Amino acid sequence: METNGVRPNTALCKAPSNASLLAAAAVLCLLGAKSLAHAQVVSVPPSASVPARVGDNVRTVAPALERYEQNALFGNLWRRPDLSPRDRSLVTLAALVARNQAAELPRYLDLALDSDVKPGEISELITHLAFYSGWGNALQAVAAAKDVFARRRIGADQLPPSEPELLPLDQAAEATRAARVEQDVRPVSPGLEGFTTDILFRDLWLRPGLAPRDRSLVTVSSLIASGQVAQVPYHLNRAMDNGLTRAQAGEVVTHLAFYAGWPNAFSAVPVLKAVLDGRRN
Amino acid sequence: METNGVRPNTALCKAPSNASLLAAAAVLCLLGAKSLAHAQVVSVPPSASVPARVGDNVRTVAPALERYEQNALFGNLWRRPDLSPRDRSLVTLAALVARNQAAELPRYLDLALDSDVKPGEISELITHLAFYSGWGNALQAVAAAKDVFARRRIGADQLPPSEPELLPLDQAAEATRAARVEQDVRPVSPGLEGFTTDILFRDLWLRPGLAPRDRSLVTVSSLIASGQVAQVPYHLNRAMDNGLTRAQAGEVVTHLAFYAGWPNAFSAVPVLKAVLDGRRN
Amino acid sequence: METNGVRPNTALCKAPSNASLLAAAAVLCLLGAKSLAHAQVVSVPPSASVPARVGDNVRTVAPALERYEQNALFGNLWRRPDLSPRDRSLVTLAALVARNQAAELPRYLDLALDSDVKPGEISELITHLAFYSGWGNALQAVAAAKDVFARRRIGADQLPPSEPELLPLDQAAEATRAARVEQDVRPVSPGLEGFTTDILFRDLWLRPGLAPRDRSLVTVSSLIASGQVAQVPYHLNRAMDNGLTRAQAGEVVTHLAFYAGWPNAFSAVPVLKAVLDGRRN
Repeated sequence: METNGVRPNTALCKAPSNASLLAAAAVLCLLGAKSLAHAQVVSVPPSASVPARVGDNVRTVAPALERYEQNALFGNLWRRPDLSPRDRSLVTLAALVARNQAAELPRYLDLALDSDVKPGEISELITHLAFYSGWGNALQAVAAAKDVFARRRIGADQLPPSEPELLPLDQAAEATRAARVEQDVRPVSPGLEGFTTDILFRDLWLRPGLAPRDRSLVTVSSLIASGQVAQVPYHLNRAMDNGLTRAQAGEVVTHLAFYAGWPNAFSAVPVLKAVLDGRRN
Repeated sequence: METNGVRPNTALCKAPSNASLLAAAAVLCLLGAKSLAHAQVVSVPPSASVPARVGDNVRTVAPALERYEQNALFGNLWRRPDLSPRDRSLVTLAALVARNQAAELPRYLDLALDSDVKPGEISELITHLAFYSGWGNALQAVAAAKDVFARRRIGADQLPPSEPELLPLDQAAEATRAARVEQDVRPVSPGLEGFTTDILFRDLWLRPGLAPRDRSLVTVSSLIASGQVAQVPYHLNRAMDNGLTRAQAGEVVTHLAFYAGWPNAFSAVPVLKAVLDGRRN
Repeated sequence: METNGVRPNTALCKAPSNASLLAAAAVLCLLGAKSLAHAQVVSVPPSASVPARVGDNVRTVAPALERYEQNALFGNLWRRPDLSPRDRSLVTLAALVARNQAAELPRYLDLALDSDVKPGEISELITHLAFYSGWGNALQAVAAAKDVFARRRIGADQLPPSEPELLPLDQAAEATRAARVEQDVRPVSPGLEGFTTDILFRDLWLRPGLAPRDRSLVTVSSLIASGQVAQVPYHLNRAMDNGLTRAQAGEVVTHLAFYAGWPNAFSAVPVLKAVLDGRRN
């Protein structure tokens, strides 16, 4: 067994292949993996200085946790090839909002913005998760994002309008969904059926500020991160219909093991397996 | 599809039917639905100024979330007829305590007190949820309520005594419950059985400061809000035995979709359906 | 029914049997049970003054909750004989970290340190729960522990090294575990399988700073406290293989009823029963 406790990962040895990944790698280095060989060759955005002191805190209480954070989390997980840094940022933000971990949000909002996630996409992610993880979770995320946006001078012109032109509705898929909810939900909670149809599937999901594939990725991540696997099959199929690959789906679970805990990841595995087994692509 | 993304709700067009609802409506307007036609006809209690700035925060990050909050949440959900503003306040407070969302508590404590929830009922709700959502959750709620009570000059004379005369015990129902717990729990966790019988069902549940129907409403709401549906059947039946109607039960789930997220509401639907199907009234 | 709502507990009448229990009892008295007869006979460590004001807060909002805290929680639960104060501290800290209740951590970190839990064991507990309850939960715990460690002048010399000599691996048990994860997890999430084997079971679990029995106790407690019972059977069997008794297992559930809420305790009961029924010892 080797000293850092993780398997050799050849991705660690390759130079990032594009500019945004370079910037993300630089942030990752500051976040923890300070000793990586190529850290000095990239320029670092000013915001990247924010999370630099995290390691000091950890060291005074748990030196081993600092080592795991440097080697396993930022030195390995975030560099694995099956999911881009941009996707990992969306997954992480979804997990933090779903679990209401406001204290962790600032540094990951910065990391997301440095990893090619647009401010407008963050705005949509938070709005989306008001419905999927609870209104209060979204308002906590708003408070965190407000400060980050102000510091980075992100203004209203970079945010999506409150009432944009909506994406076209897939009439056939929507009819299937609506019929199911009409049968299951209407008899016991007609209000829930009404809001689900009118606000969620004929409004929120059609907002163009976050691509359908990314919106599904965020939804699935929030479901797994909060242990609510019952709705994963519907949304994971939807995510894969919208372009999420099998390898990416598996890597989402790997990533969430760190941010939502191993038990939530392991509880997602049989659900993921059932969905994959039921698909042809 | 109309512009605000929600179905027309005739309840929006009716004047509130009593004084406390008028006060609650005024608070709701300040909370977000500023443009409603009758906002200017009601007087606003001083505490209602507290949540007025929430919208500003939201707008700088997520203009769409602000619109949903104005139109769907405060402009529609809180005005639906199947659940009174007082009931919605109890359900919301139970959800916030169960999910440990202390940051949201102050404005909803004010809204509850403006919606005919008595300070003593809030005291009992928090004490009750110490047992149903964890001691730490109750202590966080205490910290939030302490400030609200101090600001509104709510003193010890408005709180229930620590040892009041208890309501009479329903001997038959309690014998059934005790027998079940004796069989299921005692063999593996005798301490849990003892505390459940002595403290919960022969003390906490018999405290007169919160009506049995409201205590059940709070319990069911906390269970759904934290995704713990296994205990919902027992407590939902108890709530309906104590007067909660079918329509109210369905609307509790609708309300919690917003405050605990859509997945928790959808997970509650089949459980609610099974309970309703098993009852004659 | 007697006035304090709890069954007579003879443990209340006995003097603590050793020095660390004496210290713990003193802290418990300050935490709430001020009127206990032997409170004045023990000396109180300086840190014990921290939680003394909790009761004041509670009284101004919920006098009944203060009474329950004095009589049922600190006057009864913490004094029950089936689990030592040291074990109860480990269980409580695991629950608080798993539920991300940072506000409650300081006084329970002090109580743990006064109950014979070593600083290095707290360091390992937090590191362990980074993996079992999510990275952000561990970082919140780090922030709380940092202040407590600084106040008590606990320095790096009392913390476990980041890379200690590991305990020997139980090759047979590990082969069984690895085979199961290889079959269940690898086909859908190969990354998760890799990290589970390399970092968790061939590194984290072999760190000597927290005894295997205590590490299992912490793991089981965090699983129950966060409602994730699916992984309880494996870890509870492991805990009992490492020395946790049947009575202790049952009392862990009793203890967690208070700190994680009655529903989580009741959901754990059938799982605990199935594990106990499947074992010979």
